[in-house]
Amino acid sequence: MAQEKKMVEEITSMEEDFAQWYTDIIKKAQLCEYSGVRGCMVIQPYGYAIWENIQKNLDARFKKTGVENVYMPMFIPENLLQREKDHVEGFAPEVAWVTHGGTEKLQERLCVRPTSETLFCEHYAGAIRSYRDLPKLYNQWCSVVRWEKTTRPFLRSAEFLWQEGHTAHATAEEAQERTIQMLNVYADFCEQELAIPVIKGQKTDKEKFAGAHETYTIESMMHDGKALQSGTSHNFGDGFAKAFGIQYLNDNNELTHVHQTSWGMSTRIIGAIIMVHGDDAGLKLPPRIAPIQAVIVPVAQHKEGVLERANALYDQLSEKFRMKLDASEKSPGWKFSEYEMRGVPVRIELGPKDIENNQAVLVSRIDRSKTFVSLDNIEEELAKMLDKIQAQMLEAAKQNREEKTSSAVTYEEFKQIVEEKGGFVKAMWCGDEACEMKIKEDTTATSRCIPFEQEQLADTCVCCGKPATKMVYWGKAY
Amino acid sequence: MAQEKKMVEEITSMEEDFAQWYTDIIKKAQLCEYSGVRGCMVIQPYGYAIWENIQKNLDARFKKTGVENVYMPMFIPENLLQREKDHVEGFAPEVAWVTHGGTEKLQERLCVRPTSETLFCEHYAGAIRSYRDLPKLYNQWCSVVRWEKTTRPFLRSAEFLWQEGHTAHATAEEAQERTIQMLNVYADFCEQELAIPVIKGQKTDKEKFAGAHETYTIESMMHDGKALQSGTSHNFGDGFAKAFGIQYLNDNNELTHVHQTSWGMSTRIIGAIIMVHGDDAGLKLPPRIAPIQAVIVPVAQHKEGVLERANALYDQLSEKFRMKLDASEKSPGWKFSEYEMRGVPVRIELGPKDIENNQAVLVSRIDRSKTFVSLDNIEEELAKMLDKIQAQMLEAAKQNREEKTSSAVTYEEFKQIVEEKGGFVKAMWCGDEACEMKIKEDTTATSRCIPFEQEQLADTCVCCGKPATKMVYWGKAY
Repeated sequence: MAQEKKMVEEITSMEEDFAQWYTDIIKKAQLCEYSGVRGCMVIQPYGYAIWENIQKNLDARFKKTGVENVYMPMFIPENLLQREKDHVEGFAPEVAWVTHGGTEKLQERLCVRPTSETLFCEHYAGAIRSYRDLPKLYNQWCSVVRWEKTTRPFLRSAEFLWQEGHTAHATAEEAQERTIQMLNVYADFCEQELAIPVIKGQKTDKEKFAGAHETYTIESMMHDGKALQSGTSHNFGDGFAKAFGIQYLNDNNELTHVHQTSWGMSTRIIGAIIMVHGDDAGLKLPPRIAPIQAVIVPVAQHKEGVLERANALYDQLSEKFRMKLDASEKSPGWKFSEYEMRGVPVRIELGPKDIENNQAVLVSRIDRSKTFVSLDNIEEELAKMLDKIQAQMLEAAKQNREEKTSSAVTYEEFKQIVEEKGGFVKAMWCGDEACEMKIKEDTTATSRCIPFEQEQLADTCVCCGKPATKMVYWGKAY
Repeated sequence: MAQEKKMVEEITSMEEDFAQWYTDIIKKAQLCEYSGVRGCMVIQPYGYAIWENIQKNLDARFKKTGVENVYMPMFIPENLLQREKDHVEGFAPEVAWVTHGGTEKLQERLCVRPTSETLFCEHYAGAIRSYRDLPKLYNQWCSVVRWEKTTRPFLRSAEFLWQEGHTAHATAEEAQERTIQMLNVYADFCEQELAIPVIKGQKTDKEKFAGAHETYTIESMMHDGKALQSGTSHNFGDGFAKAFGIQYLNDNNELTHVHQTSWGMSTRIIGAIIMVHGDDAGLKLPPRIAPIQAVIVPVAQHKEGVLERANALYDQLSEKFRMKLDASEKSPGWKFSEYEMRGVPVRIELGPKDIENNQAVLVSRIDRSKTFVSLDNIEEELAKMLDKIQAQMLEAAKQNREEKTSSAVTYEEFKQIVEEKGGFVKAMWCGDEACEMKIKEDTTATSRCIPFEQEQLADTCVCCGKPATKMVYWGKAY
């Protein structure tokens, strides 16, 4: 019990210091740590296993829509990066430059990809000739580099892992359809697998991706009232196609520029999982992506028959679930708090008395509630409990977001909410970037998105009082 | 038929020009192409799908032995690379150097990882404290960069994809055991999944990895008589541990250096698949890793009921196999040679007469042999045929290797075989690097490995005539 207490005490309470709580969890649960390279992470096995589960699920969802995986070079020659004006302006200040190969100075500098639009465009320019070559629906899983000044594990690092999808289409309509389709894939994935509800919407011009015609986003709400942009999908129109000369012969034999999209989700989403679900006991992982869905902790394991039965149970359940059996010499109490801290959804306790009664105890990570189940139907019971936990987590996250969502009509209200309560603030906007700038300057809140689900809260802009037609979600963000 | 002929004619015959044949296949089958970045590949969907199947299978094999995946930074600070003397000497001449982040010059240059021993060592130095922290069995899937002067797709490129395993152990014995265990994982994988038989053995000191105590290798034989190093496993002893200060408290409470291993397999192996199995009609892919295991080609598809039945068959077989249905408007003849060229193991022809007779025709990529099967048990028949093809491909590759393996006792014999016949030459060696150098200079053949299965072909070194105890496989290599 002393040990158990000590472990939990090592995690700073959320209320006391949310940033420190976040850092403590990442360290204690061994998700990742900083390396000797400024701002670059070492993603440890437990953190990487979460990413692998995310990858596997998301990749299958992409493929179901016809997407194919490819791999592009990690380097972009300087002249290629410069081909699209807005794009280079957005990214050049934060790229890492390779200037030497071995002992030789390169004739042209190469940047390490911060994103790969330019490489995909160069490839498409060569690969696309006729309408028969369309659409191209490519994706790659890789790491990218952005030379950020301040970094935080998972949320903002100099190098991070992600996927970037890049598609080319014959028509503007098809590109727009794909842009929204992939936004919906992300939104469904977040809700169904990560138990993270998201607001879908469009970015303002100020917040859109460098070179994009339109940027769409899913925004989620963390426990501390800050928002996190969790995935984006961009419609490029034919801007990149014109800059890179990507044309096809349509069925009237006319040369036409393609319309393109790109969309990405990164290891940043692991930060969201931590900050949406975690509590003062540690991580809480949604069963669908938890590396360990249930851990078996034998009780009085030195007693005859306990370890044998625990092993048999492990073998049985491993066929259907991602399991761990901890038969180490640490005390059950230590193990209980260890796996709570690591966010394992269900703990299965199994002692001599349980075995005598042909039962085990399932303990939920959500509320530590105990359920005694017969060993005869433990598979069904565990499956049921995991489903229940998944649903409970989504429900709790939704509730948290509701509590942290307000509306403001006057600017005074708006500023007060941002300062005192935080969270999302819904408010009307005139569409002028000047108001966005002023709001950011006054409150540090930014426009998160123009949600698809609009409400007419007032007729005038919350900031300048001029006529407004758009409702915007505002908030401080990671 | 004219179209069919044209397509095959576009592939240069193997006999005529093997290098051109290789390049033609890669281009025609759309496996990869060069990008605008010198020596860097764009891996296209079909090539990447092969890599995904390789990854999936190999990753499962690693995990079965207790290996966990992680992710390390892509950059290595210059001082870290220099920590182990032999290692930096081996790699520094061929690394890409990052000197600027955004507009600022970095205080210390970073190289893009050519391999990650130094990063894993730095991590282990911090993470390993006691024998309870051992063993560490980490692996990562990533891309690495080696600034090669001459490049060839898959075989030697400036950037390539691979996995690199890095383990740390309490004892020398355990490290050695793991080194051999992983070599065996690679060898089994090559034989069982890729149908590529390999020679297992040890590298000579001259050929071993920079910084390794011992390097083990699997060597395979291509169609043109050249060998290809297909995977390596290194025992580092405690050399890196001493250079990086990786120590643990053993159970006697004494500080002890760990013993380490590393092992890797890369996209190079796709080159081996092409060059071991391909023929003048194109690729031949082993069923176990083929992205498409069988393609359905409807015959007279405009006739009533043909496409419906083909679609139903596709749906049925897709549940168990990786399938494609080509219902495009191209002629069946064109499709036949297209999918032969792409190495699809089985073609399923289905026409009105077949449907009338409740049958389909399975055509093997190996020999174009046709088997008429009832649609009632086509699943079993297809499974059987795929297994048979997998076995036939391994058998053919073994036979090819046998034909291309010779023994030499005198140096005259040796030189003549290397020059006229090529392939592996087994010959005795005194152990002196001078003989290796001389052989390489005289013949361009290198020592491929000292095989685990030794034979005593003679008592003296094939080169210098001094006493010899080791038989070595020699050959020209990629």
